[in-house]
Amino acid sequence: MELTLKEIAGIIGGTVTGDDQVHIKGINSLEQAERGEISFVVGPRFRDLVKSTKASALIIKERSELYRGPQVIVRDPYLAYARVAGIFAPSIPRYPGISDKAVIGEGTRLGEKVSVYPFVYVGRDSVLGDNIVLFPGVYLGDRVTVGDGSVVYPNVTIMSDCIIGREVIIHAGTVIGSDGFGYARDGEVSVKIPQRGIVHIEDNVEIGANNAIDRAALGRTLIGKGAKTDNLVQIAHNVTIGENTVIVAQVGIAGSTRVGRNVVIGPQVGVSDHLEIGDRVMVVGGSGVVQSIPAGEVVSGFPTMPHRLWLKTRGHIRRLPKYSERLRELEDRVKELEEELKRE
Amino acid sequence: MELTLKEIAGIIGGTVTGDDQVHIKGINSLEQAERGEISFVVGPRFRDLVKSTKASALIIKERSELYRGPQVIVRDPYLAYARVAGIFAPSIPRYPGISDKAVIGEGTRLGEKVSVYPFVYVGRDSVLGDNIVLFPGVYLGDRVTVGDGSVVYPNVTIMSDCIIGREVIIHAGTVIGSDGFGYARDGEVSVKIPQRGIVHIEDNVEIGANNAIDRAALGRTLIGKGAKTDNLVQIAHNVTIGENTVIVAQVGIAGSTRVGRNVVIGPQVGVSDHLEIGDRVMVVGGSGVVQSIPAGEVVSGFPTMPHRLWLKTRGHIRRLPKYSERLRELEDRVKELEEELKRE
Amino acid sequence: MELTLKEIAGIIGGTVTGDDQVHIKGINSLEQAERGEISFVVGPRFRDLVKSTKASALIIKERSELYRGPQVIVRDPYLAYARVAGIFAPSIPRYPGISDKAVIGEGTRLGEKVSVYPFVYVGRDSVLGDNIVLFPGVYLGDRVTVGDGSVVYPNVTIMSDCIIGREVIIHAGTVIGSDGFGYARDGEVSVKIPQRGIVHIEDNVEIGANNAIDRAALGRTLIGKGAKTDNLVQIAHNVTIGENTVIVAQVGIAGSTRVGRNVVIGPQVGVSDHLEIGDRVMVVGGSGVVQSIPAGEVVSGFPTMPHRLWLKTRGHIRRLPKYSERLRELEDRVKELEEELKRE
Repeated sequence: MELTLKEIAGIIGGTVTGDDQVHIKGINSLEQAERGEISFVVGPRFRDLVKSTKASALIIKERSELYRGPQVIVRDPYLAYARVAGIFAPSIPRYPGISDKAVIGEGTRLGEKVSVYPFVYVGRDSVLGDNIVLFPGVYLGDRVTVGDGSVVYPNVTIMSDCIIGREVIIHAGTVIGSDGFGYARDGEVSVKIPQRGIVHIEDNVEIGANNAIDRAALGRTLIGKGAKTDNLVQIAHNVTIGENTVIVAQVGIAGSTRVGRNVVIGPQVGVSDHLEIGDRVMVVGGSGVVQSIPAGEVVSGFPTMPHRLWLKTRGHIRRLPKYSERLRELEDRVKELEEELKRE
Repeated sequence: MELTLKEIAGIIGGTVTGDDQVHIKGINSLEQAERGEISFVVGPRFRDLVKSTKASALIIKERSELYRGPQVIVRDPYLAYARVAGIFAPSIPRYPGISDKAVIGEGTRLGEKVSVYPFVYVGRDSVLGDNIVLFPGVYLGDRVTVGDGSVVYPNVTIMSDCIIGREVIIHAGTVIGSDGFGYARDGEVSVKIPQRGIVHIEDNVEIGANNAIDRAALGRTLIGKGAKTDNLVQIAHNVTIGENTVIVAQVGIAGSTRVGRNVVIGPQVGVSDHLEIGDRVMVVGGSGVVQSIPAGEVVSGFPTMPHRLWLKTRGHIRRLPKYSERLRELEDRVKELEEELKRE
Repeated sequence: MELTLKEIAGIIGGTVTGDDQVHIKGINSLEQAERGEISFVVGPRFRDLVKSTKASALIIKERSELYRGPQVIVRDPYLAYARVAGIFAPSIPRYPGISDKAVIGEGTRLGEKVSVYPFVYVGRDSVLGDNIVLFPGVYLGDRVTVGDGSVVYPNVTIMSDCIIGREVIIHAGTVIGSDGFGYARDGEVSVKIPQRGIVHIEDNVEIGANNAIDRAALGRTLIGKGAKTDNLVQIAHNVTIGENTVIVAQVGIAGSTRVGRNVVIGPQVGVSDHLEIGDRVMVVGGSGVVQSIPAGEVVSGFPTMPHRLWLKTRGHIRRLPKYSERLRELEDRVKELEEELKRE
């Protein structure tokens, strides 16, 4: 595929300085771009790279004197990069039709132009939309819904009755709809509470590799529209994740917690059960959230505190041995003062 | 399926007040229950819900005046809910017999009424009990034993020689019997120590999704009867987990550690290698266990301390910046006092 | 297989005291060794076991008077154990040739003596070396390279264009080459940045079970020669792991971080993005690395500090409630002193 610079500028809402008829056939980093590719300038480290890049055009925030070729001026070059890269990205390899080495259960309906690879198993009475791709080793249970344009990568398991929206991407090895971890205790024995709810994943969600998202005990576990999870994320039963929320790798969210919209949860964070995390909250990586957090706060630490406080606090932790010495020393000096005063 | 309230009361050891001949065809939450379903009251938030529920009967600890229908009085309504829900739970969908798209190795013996889905691979000389279910994508190696009534969900891997007991449930994506992480160092190079032991999972164990349970170097990694693990749990080689112990999501237990019976290990806990965790210990989520813990203790923090101490301690951590100021101020005041006394 | 003790001594560079013509057919622990097996003595707990072992020979650092049979004296008995166990280890079960229940894409070339189990899927134009083993449920995308002698365990996913070196072992359930977690924000919406790079795993690497190793945005994610990862490890896009580095279970390494050679990263450690971890660094388990670490340091804590400092510091944390009391008490005493002096 090739586009003129003018066409690219149109797509990303930019202004061209220089020749807008240059033909562009790809996008790459400043170092790796070749003749015919466009590149992009994000952050302050670019100075020398701009001088030496072989790119045929640049996406940039302010026109650079160091580059002689045409430049597309945009407000957010990183976002523009994402959009242009999306256009040039190779499309996902699609199996042509439904492999005769796949198994599709009775009563299951498939849309148009689906791609079902060998060794896919789909249960009964499922509904699969147009243009979906199911890679090898995918298991879909009975009565599963997958919306138009969704891609399910290899060895993903989606248990019965779960609902996957449109344009959803689920990376390899992920499990959706496994039983929630619920038991009643009968003396020393754990009695399993049947997990009869579902997982509902809304449109435009992307789920990373080797996630585990449990079905609800009753009702549903919900991943809101546009939310994204990184790899090895654990989402327990009856959790709700709000729209456009971003959850980084190895996070665990315990049962029935409600996470708001546009929240960012950093890597390896743990969130306790039955909490409310407000909209636009940011939880810094490695934190442990054990109480609800009002909308808009930035928190970190274990247990979490305002991030600014944690930044101040954490430096003090390593000074504790010194503080302890100073405390003891002060006690000695005060004792001496007290004795001196007594003597007088 | 339908039961009379009398039959249900018999099963859960309860006493009926009101009409015990009501027919019950399911169990649901107070909000979601419909006519013909029974519901249950756990905790103090039920008052309004009890008034408005459409359930045809209630399981409850003490008779409520706010509900007009029949009530089953039991000591532990949550446990009673688990039992009744277990009765009404839809059974696991079973493939009828052994799929001709499954591969069963030579010398492998299967019990009665087994359900082996397409794309299951079983190695040689394995022994699979009655009524087991192997979902698509399950791999069992050579000489694996799976006891009667066990269910292995999709894309689970059980490597050679491992022993799975009766009525065991293993959720999707889990790996059992991968090599333990053992190397000897030869200068800078890690020389692999062959992992020749097994994993032995006893009866009534439930293992969550995407766990990794390594085989022993020599001998066995043991998961005791009735133990339960949540998702994304790591259990290293030669670990022993005692009976009825509960391990919540994303916990990691390092090599050769022995965890006792009826232990509860909260989410994201790490336990170091070669430790002894006594019976009935509780480890609060997010803790790091770096020393053995005597039976019956409740611990938290990193490194762990008695949980009560941690509850006191953690509030002080965020006050460290203040304490530091107060310490400095005290030093100034003491210095002044000392100088004043000297002047006199 | 059987070897004489002399042959074994030759392989591990040891000196035999006693009969070097004893035939050895296996290696085992002191407790479990039987007649005909050799055992090994590591650490100080062996005294009684050496007396009572049934092993026909010992590998040991210094000759023991407590054992009557022949002994092989070596500098590092643990390393010698690894080598001898490697010789006697049962070989990996190999499917004879390429199963007709596997699917191999057009243009893919396979080496000699490959073992491809049923339900393996390999895409187009891939290159698979001699003696490789692909277990059931393995997915290899298009243009994947796998070097000679590598073993890929069940249900592993390796996405398109990734490069796997020679003598690599990848344990079950692991995902290699999933998309890195990269988005540009357009207001509240996350716009996916196509992940067009690859994962390159060099020779002699061993990857644990249920890992997730993301492909680079551009360029490559690199796992250097001889590196080892344990289970449930997360390696983000564009990370570099140096040669012979060891990464224990549940570690997460964020995007573009460069980890040096011969580094050891303990369990459940998190490492932030865009950091440099120097050669031979050791990060103790449970730590959170938020800044670069110079070569050779041993660090722990969250955020990390020199491990010796952390060992001192962490004891103080649990004494914070006491320190707080002592601080308040001191303030009272100083106030009293000040008032007393004022009165005089």
